[in-house]
Amino acid sequence: METLKLRKISIDTYRENVAYLHRDCPVYRSEGFQALNKIEVHRAADGSPVIAVLNVVDDENILAPDELGLSEQAFAQLNLAGGTGVRVEHARPPVSLKSVHRKIAGERLTLDEYRGITRDIRGNRYSKIEIAAFLVSCAETGMERDEVLHLTRAMVETGKRLDWSEPLVVDKHCIGGIPGNRTSMLVVPIVAAHGMLIPKTSSRAITSPAGTADTMAVLAHVELSPDQLHQIVRRERACLAWGGKARLAPVDDILISVERPLSLDSPGQMVASILAKKIAAGSTHLLIDIPVGPTAKIRSRSAALRLRKLFEYTGDHLGLQLEVIITDGRQPIGRGIGPVLEARDVMQILNNHPDAPADLREKALQLAGRILEFEPDVHGGQGYVIARDILDSGRALAKMEAIIKAQGENTESPVPGNLQQTVLADASGTITDIDNLLMAHVARLAGAPMDPGAGVDLHYKLGEKVKQGDALYTIYAEFAPDFRFACEAATKESGYRIEASGPTPG
Amino acid sequence: METLKLRKISIDTYRENVAYLHRDCPVYRSEGFQALNKIEVHRAADGSPVIAVLNVVDDENILAPDELGLSEQAFAQLNLAGGTGVRVEHARPPVSLKSVHRKIAGERLTLDEYRGITRDIRGNRYSKIEIAAFLVSCAETGMERDEVLHLTRAMVETGKRLDWSEPLVVDKHCIGGIPGNRTSMLVVPIVAAHGMLIPKTSSRAITSPAGTADTMAVLAHVELSPDQLHQIVRRERACLAWGGKARLAPVDDILISVERPLSLDSPGQMVASILAKKIAAGSTHLLIDIPVGPTAKIRSRSAALRLRKLFEYTGDHLGLQLEVIITDGRQPIGRGIGPVLEARDVMQILNNHPDAPADLREKALQLAGRILEFEPDVHGGQGYVIARDILDSGRALAKMEAIIKAQGENTESPVPGNLQQTVLADASGTITDIDNLLMAHVARLAGAPMDPGAGVDLHYKLGEKVKQGDALYTIYAEFAPDFRFACEAATKESGYRIEASGPTPG
Repeated sequence: METLKLRKISIDTYRENVAYLHRDCPVYRSEGFQALNKIEVHRAADGSPVIAVLNVVDDENILAPDELGLSEQAFAQLNLAGGTGVRVEHARPPVSLKSVHRKIAGERLTLDEYRGITRDIRGNRYSKIEIAAFLVSCAETGMERDEVLHLTRAMVETGKRLDWSEPLVVDKHCIGGIPGNRTSMLVVPIVAAHGMLIPKTSSRAITSPAGTADTMAVLAHVELSPDQLHQIVRRERACLAWGGKARLAPVDDILISVERPLSLDSPGQMVASILAKKIAAGSTHLLIDIPVGPTAKIRSRSAALRLRKLFEYTGDHLGLQLEVIITDGRQPIGRGIGPVLEARDVMQILNNHPDAPADLREKALQLAGRILEFEPDVHGGQGYVIARDILDSGRALAKMEAIIKAQGENTESPVPGNLQQTVLADASGTITDIDNLLMAHVARLAGAPMDPGAGVDLHYKLGEKVKQGDALYTIYAEFAPDFRFACEAATKESGYRIEASGPTPG
Repeated sequence: METLKLRKISIDTYRENVAYLHRDCPVYRSEGFQALNKIEVHRAADGSPVIAVLNVVDDENILAPDELGLSEQAFAQLNLAGGTGVRVEHARPPVSLKSVHRKIAGERLTLDEYRGITRDIRGNRYSKIEIAAFLVSCAETGMERDEVLHLTRAMVETGKRLDWSEPLVVDKHCIGGIPGNRTSMLVVPIVAAHGMLIPKTSSRAITSPAGTADTMAVLAHVELSPDQLHQIVRRERACLAWGGKARLAPVDDILISVERPLSLDSPGQMVASILAKKIAAGSTHLLIDIPVGPTAKIRSRSAALRLRKLFEYTGDHLGLQLEVIITDGRQPIGRGIGPVLEARDVMQILNNHPDAPADLREKALQLAGRILEFEPDVHGGQGYVIARDILDSGRALAKMEAIIKAQGENTESPVPGNLQQTVLADASGTITDIDNLLMAHVARLAGAPMDPGAGVDLHYKLGEKVKQGDALYTIYAEFAPDFRFACEAATKESGYRIEASGPTPG
């Protein structure tokens, strides 16, 4: 079979291997590749193949007829120099696709089948449409709770696993959806000041106006090498870093790259995704926060309870000590939405500033209290008091400053955007609703999280009274077009509901 | 918002719109497109947008930072000259994705929802993973028969529909899977010689060693313009053309581009796909052939009956007169597998040649007989006799020659490949099994259908007796590497089972 010259095509195809052949390539013509979706690329001599989806090129400036192109990820995976001779073959479908077809037919898969699927996904042997087929077949009512357990276990097995060599490694996770909910940056210093080990890694925002990593980046460097991260955690008992470099539970990252654009968010996949990441990160004890509200991810208490059971069942079987708390998700937490504004809220609370948002402080104390109670010596119900003492005494602030210093302080510390516009109450009355989704949308339009100073600052919260013309919130932006889009969206719909009077009796 | 210069990227991405932005493109950086999967591309002034999945380019030879690239299909769809100013936005998900999510959740969709989905797919507003999500959610037990009807109707509505202005426009369709089963090339001339209108368009092989269009191409031109096709059909009452140019039921073509690599073949999708194409082609009467056998697509008589009911239900409600016959799919039909060898079989039968394969002749006569009985004047049970008279008298041959002449005779008419190898019986006895899948695989490895002379010629069929060393079949190829692969595969497993004696009594 003919040999082709390998060429890197500098295109980032988002976690999908793509191969390129010129339409006049003799191999392309003779092998009947037209209708095929996947090919195997082999080093001419030997070695394990890379599987890629085929695109056909009609431009010799991109690729010559005697070349085989690979997208950036596929090229890195094959790990050969450009110009090396390679040969291509029809790809045999990954063996585990049989299990996906069984799942599509509504059958229950075994642990070994989930292992086969995650191994093949890890090896980039699945195309994105195959991953989509797997995810949809598992969505909604499609997974028994034993299958969630199997998938979680299989995802942990296909990646590295950190070992902190301590009996108590704590972590917290919120399932998301509530703007401004920056509790990690308070919980971590409180818990670490008490001496617990809490190596917190977080994601950057994907669909929200700020992730913990984005907000922490306002104050300190968050892109730490595994070595740096370990050193900092050993010294400070904590970190607040970006988790993107760790490649823990890598299959989860690949699944998310398809789940996200499909807006698939099935309970089974969510539980497996979160727990696999935490177990791989070496956590022994985990607090899960499930906010419930009409514009939160989980909209009813019964749905939250079902999700809690699934977390508990899976965590228990994998030796993870797990607490799930269901919290108030009816409105954003704190005042600021967007990296700089949220960082301001956090620092005000740590500084015991009189303007500090009480709701964020209170929620953080509750979460920290529950984590402190993972400690055998802490009496049930005492966690909250200990947490409050740590915060009030300034020990949490001192710990945060130590973490910031250890990770590398951000000296240019950004400020709120200088384009500012207030959104006014169109009536007098009591605030009865604040739409999480809309506030997040406006903040994102304003530029968050790409522009750290962009976002929304809330001046009133649920239950407070306003007069017509009062400023409900301020939009901040750094660039004029973003600013205009955000203001337009807020003008169309403010996200606040104001009712003239409280519910009248009878 | 900034304007980018449009550039065509000459990459064929198989029915998925792909947009390319350079990583240093200011729009890419400021809009937070990284994590997004889909963007909308607008003409700078106005006009309806093209939706495309985003890839990121790191090479200025492919794309400059001030350019926006579109793959071939997307570029054609936007229909603007290269260099035109365009702007990009975050794509709003197509409205009909809500219905897909309802389907994933196991709900039943309405006709209007299927209409919404097919309209959005037709407009290339779905990415391939979204199409995969839709297909998987409909797979297996996921579609009620009313939904199959809705989907079929919606697919017909989203494309052109031919009108032949005659009360009786007949067609036949086999659900596939049986090598050598080239009945259309016999049924069409027989039926047309009787005067019925049968404008037959066929596909090229995708996973099989030959489609009707590939085999007909051995004898005549098959790529006809819609005008040519109409003229030929008006004059000869028939054609045997490639259907790829018609763009009938275009949504079906898009769905197939995802179904095929996923090996999804759910009954609901199959019925909708076949019937939508036939109705769009203007057929009023249709004969469906469902072969059943251990290596056929449908493996049990009960599955075939279920499928028949679904065809009947859907056809009836769409005003299509439908006959479904369940045929013997235990082995290949005829002798040749591959375009040239199959064309030889067909022409031998039309010529009443003594070597003509009896099974293919017999099956074609049965199918043609059933179609002739669509004619109100033909007495039930007489169709077969009429068909046989037409064939025996040479009128079918004359009609075939007229069709070939009308479409344009292929003067270079290809011959069987000159690399030849026989595969010998390893024992004496009776042939009890011939594996359809394996014979198709060997013929494809040998080069069919790309090399028309490549394929397999069967010398023995089920129930015949052989002696050890007899030639079971001959492999033909045009190129040495293909020949080697095919011979190796056949040596490993011949595809024939020979049992020393018939089943012994008691």
